[in-house]
Amino acid sequence: MLSFRRLIIGKPLKTEEAAHEKLPKWKALSIFSSDALSSIGYGPEQIILTLAIPGMLIYGYFSYATLAVIALLAVVTLSYTQVARANPGGGGSYSIALHNLGELPALIAAAALVADYVLTVAVSISSGTEALVSAFPFLIGREVTIDIIVLFLVLTIVNLRGVRESSNVFVWPTYFFIFGIVCMIGAGVYKALTEAAPIIPAESVVMQQADWFITLIVMRAFANGCSSMTGIEAISNGVPMFQEPSVNNAIRTTYVMSALLGSMIFGISFLFLHYHLLPQENVTMLSQLAENVFGRNWAYYYIQIATMLILYLAANTAYNGLPPLLSIMARDLYVPRYLGEKGERLGYSKGILLLSLISAALIIVFNGNVEHLISLYAIGVFLSFTIAQSSLVVKWVREKGPNWIGRSVLNGFGACITGIVVIVIAVTKFIHGAWIVLIFIPAMIYIFKTIHRHYITTGQQLRASTADFMEQLDIHQPRNLIIVPISGITKVVAASLRYSKAIGGDIIALYIYSEEEERQKFEEKWKALNLEGVTLHVLYSPYRSIVQPILGYVSELEMQKTIYNYITIVIPEFEPAKLWHRLLHNQTGWILRTLLILRENVIVSTLPYHFKK
Amino acid sequence: MLSFRRLIIGKPLKTEEAAHEKLPKWKALSIFSSDALSSIGYGPEQIILTLAIPGMLIYGYFSYATLAVIALLAVVTLSYTQVARANPGGGGSYSIALHNLGELPALIAAAALVADYVLTVAVSISSGTEALVSAFPFLIGREVTIDIIVLFLVLTIVNLRGVRESSNVFVWPTYFFIFGIVCMIGAGVYKALTEAAPIIPAESVVMQQADWFITLIVMRAFANGCSSMTGIEAISNGVPMFQEPSVNNAIRTTYVMSALLGSMIFGISFLFLHYHLLPQENVTMLSQLAENVFGRNWAYYYIQIATMLILYLAANTAYNGLPPLLSIMARDLYVPRYLGEKGERLGYSKGILLLSLISAALIIVFNGNVEHLISLYAIGVFLSFTIAQSSLVVKWVREKGPNWIGRSVLNGFGACITGIVVIVIAVTKFIHGAWIVLIFIPAMIYIFKTIHRHYITTGQQLRASTADFMEQLDIHQPRNLIIVPISGITKVVAASLRYSKAIGGDIIALYIYSEEEERQKFEEKWKALNLEGVTLHVLYSPYRSIVQPILGYVSELEMQKTIYNYITIVIPEFEPAKLWHRLLHNQTGWILRTLLILRENVIVSTLPYHFKK
Repeated sequence: MLSFRRLIIGKPLKTEEAAHEKLPKWKALSIFSSDALSSIGYGPEQIILTLAIPGMLIYGYFSYATLAVIALLAVVTLSYTQVARANPGGGGSYSIALHNLGELPALIAAAALVADYVLTVAVSISSGTEALVSAFPFLIGREVTIDIIVLFLVLTIVNLRGVRESSNVFVWPTYFFIFGIVCMIGAGVYKALTEAAPIIPAESVVMQQADWFITLIVMRAFANGCSSMTGIEAISNGVPMFQEPSVNNAIRTTYVMSALLGSMIFGISFLFLHYHLLPQENVTMLSQLAENVFGRNWAYYYIQIATMLILYLAANTAYNGLPPLLSIMARDLYVPRYLGEKGERLGYSKGILLLSLISAALIIVFNGNVEHLISLYAIGVFLSFTIAQSSLVVKWVREKGPNWIGRSVLNGFGACITGIVVIVIAVTKFIHGAWIVLIFIPAMIYIFKTIHRHYITTGQQLRASTADFMEQLDIHQPRNLIIVPISGITKVVAASLRYSKAIGGDIIALYIYSEEEERQKFEEKWKALNLEGVTLHVLYSPYRSIVQPILGYVSELEMQKTIYNYITIVIPEFEPAKLWHRLLHNQTGWILRTLLILRENVIVSTLPYHFKK
Repeated sequence: MLSFRRLIIGKPLKTEEAAHEKLPKWKALSIFSSDALSSIGYGPEQIILTLAIPGMLIYGYFSYATLAVIALLAVVTLSYTQVARANPGGGGSYSIALHNLGELPALIAAAALVADYVLTVAVSISSGTEALVSAFPFLIGREVTIDIIVLFLVLTIVNLRGVRESSNVFVWPTYFFIFGIVCMIGAGVYKALTEAAPIIPAESVVMQQADWFITLIVMRAFANGCSSMTGIEAISNGVPMFQEPSVNNAIRTTYVMSALLGSMIFGISFLFLHYHLLPQENVTMLSQLAENVFGRNWAYYYIQIATMLILYLAANTAYNGLPPLLSIMARDLYVPRYLGEKGERLGYSKGILLLSLISAALIIVFNGNVEHLISLYAIGVFLSFTIAQSSLVVKWVREKGPNWIGRSVLNGFGACITGIVVIVIAVTKFIHGAWIVLIFIPAMIYIFKTIHRHYITTGQQLRASTADFMEQLDIHQPRNLIIVPISGITKVVAASLRYSKAIGGDIIALYIYSEEEERQKFEEKWKALNLEGVTLHVLYSPYRSIVQPILGYVSELEMQKTIYNYITIVIPEFEPAKLWHRLLHNQTGWILRTLLILRENVIVSTLPYHFKK
């Protein structure tokens, strides 16, 4: 068992072995941008999916929604360069909000981030698998199985092993992907300019008169498109990992990433329109596009595999985000403390497992359907964008540092825009799943606060000054009553009584019977033993249970307020020679132990009795 | 939780409340014969199912197979009246074989009976549901769900409550069913004689030249038909429940039951042939017959409901059979002892649950398909018939009582016939599932024997003569070392140390650290306390684990063979004010307890620490 664990997870690492490598920009770009860039694997498609309603001729609004997304990207990018500047110690919206806005906004940001990270895993893995399935149709119908395999057999294990973020494994897929997409856009645009244009149906160009309903649909398409922007905050959270001057390097990397993302969205969207692609079952639009541009040759498969890899890698970035966030929150006592403990390999292993389990549940519940998951996605991201930027406005105003007015205005503007996006998403996608997030966030805040309260009160109850401590400790020679439940004159009973003699106290042997005849026989035998210092007590059990009479007897003793400070019950635990032997013995000892522990001042001592064969 | 249990199962019953009612013949007939009679719900259909192979014109052999089954029924009935005579104390083939043939045949019979009872539940419930679904086609596709509901929400609960076998609930369905079937046969035969005969296709009358292949199929049909005979042994197992003269009454009841069963099989088979019915998906043949005879009116629904009820009731008879058999075997140490313990309501509750769980597994694995389950069924029954009758031959010969020669010949003949049937079933149905039973029976025997051996050896290890007992007990004042793992200066630590002082022994406080700074801070605080009689021991934990260093330390102490006879480890168990608070505390205490219990002479004392809020 242990060696299997070693094989999978690797040998434990000492606390000193934690390494801190500084990343050059080219490496940082690929590591921090996989989440953002990978979203072109599903983002533009999600816009079209909303617009391509059969019978509704509003496909032509696609370019409007796309341009709005790109404009928003520019605003968020500018605003986030400020976050990187304000946040040179790392830590996300939660930390910034806690320091600048207070507890409630911080917890809102935390809840939004939790939702965001979990959905990043679910959406990215599902999309990655869709890219794979588009290329290899014989896998259709096995998507959820593939998702779960990738989640547990790749991501979870990689993260439990604690493979370094900076490992090259995580660097190349991003560059493969960028290279592939840039080539595809180049080739596609070249073909578009040189070849005869495909016949474009009227609905791609004809504009419907905009009415309220159409506006709602277009807004919803825009809201879906905003999912392309998730992950843009990753660089600002990772500032400390950049080489010096880290802030400037981080800001420059942010610009490069956003420029890449924006032009890729633009290029892909242009080609979608040019080829008049429409969403299809089991084939992603990026796959359709690659097939249109390259045909189904090695270049097509290159695009699909690169897309799949970067999407799985994007899922991996959530593992670099959520467990450290949970550990900071654990330190602040908002989540269970053990989420802050580092595992054998110095990763936050419990947080990693938690993330995997919740993501798996989401994938299974939503049957690996990206379209449905996306509906939950963007709202959390933009909520945390808004909170982070609002926090910065407060920070700049409070600190009144260099250029504070410009910075406040920039972040204030960013906060307003992203705040409006939150409302747009909440309204237009309400029935499509945003309501789940809008319930989830207050529920999480309630949970965070309740956990916090619990830890504060237990801490108070446990804390002891030296005086308290000595007072608790110092009662002159406390008295102990020892109860040994016995079933006959056996070696186990002898062993239990012997241990009882080793610890101080008065000893009662407790015998339970349900038939009079048994009792008489037993009492005769007992008398013959002539034991000193052990009082026999017999109890009648009308319902043939052993547990109930013992519990009753202990309760009675407790109520009598005897001279004893403690009641110790010695329960033998049979240790069979083979594991399956356990099945042959009833678990009365275990039940008794579990129930007796609930009593105050009742101590259960478990005495092992080993069978040799 | 407890009150929910009370609601479902009822209040506990005292040992004295066990009731023993004697049954008049009319009541006994219905109670003991539901299993046998209900089998006409599937038996004749199973014969046709084998013969009605598309393209094979051997439907005409149906009557031969049926007549063979009826003849076999006559032989088994005569032979089983002897079983009732020999077995006035109750107890089935297992007990008779154990007393007359020895351990191995008894265990074969026991394994066969276990298979038989489990299959009775699975087959009867599945058939009952088929009867229901035939009448109400909108239930098609929900069969397994219905099976499981009937199994757990009706049968299991009824049996856990311990509703008396003699309750009228169990009496009427049998008579309803007999009445319905007799009326249907009467009406069917009347119509057959008075109305124009239906056009019968050639294959129902034309006889193929018999060849080896056809012979095999017909033999297999016969083997399937033998499933009609399951349950015939029920009366002979229930002799003590008959009014005096119990043996004669039981024998007479057996005759009545067999006569009823034989004539019902004959009548139903005649009408199947007359109407030329063939098996259909989702409609039982009995349902087809009822529709042919009555049309789809109230009489039809009466037949279906009565069939369903008697089949569910037949499943219930296994609950009266298997748990008592297991309890007898538990007394003989062949199955886990707790299977012999009576539950709160005086039923063998663990045996009841075990039967339900295994039957449910079978139903789910076989998807509630009667045809497939039947293949496993008859072989166990006939195996136990054969063993029971062989045992009787030995008994008669050994006892040489009145008419012993005649009795031996009769049972010997019965044993031969049923033995041949076992071989026929095993050969003709081998690939259809009989092999499962032929693997299951030796496997069960191996398990029974291994369990037996385990109990015998543990019994020897536990048994203590007075001398043994006193020797175990009497070491002059054994010495105890107490280890208290501590994490700081808290109230819990004070409580643990206080308890350690209450029990005798030397006390070590064990502190685990993974950072040097922590340790220094802690040691200063500890020194300031200036505790007498407690030695501080600090341990470095490079991998941040608490459990491993403690285990290692204890192992070291064990190896050093110190002056101590016992090592007692005091582990606090936090009892949070609310159940969900448990989720917020890590389970180090529990893990430590579980691992430490495995050591010899290491006692784990669990000290409860209750939080007030």
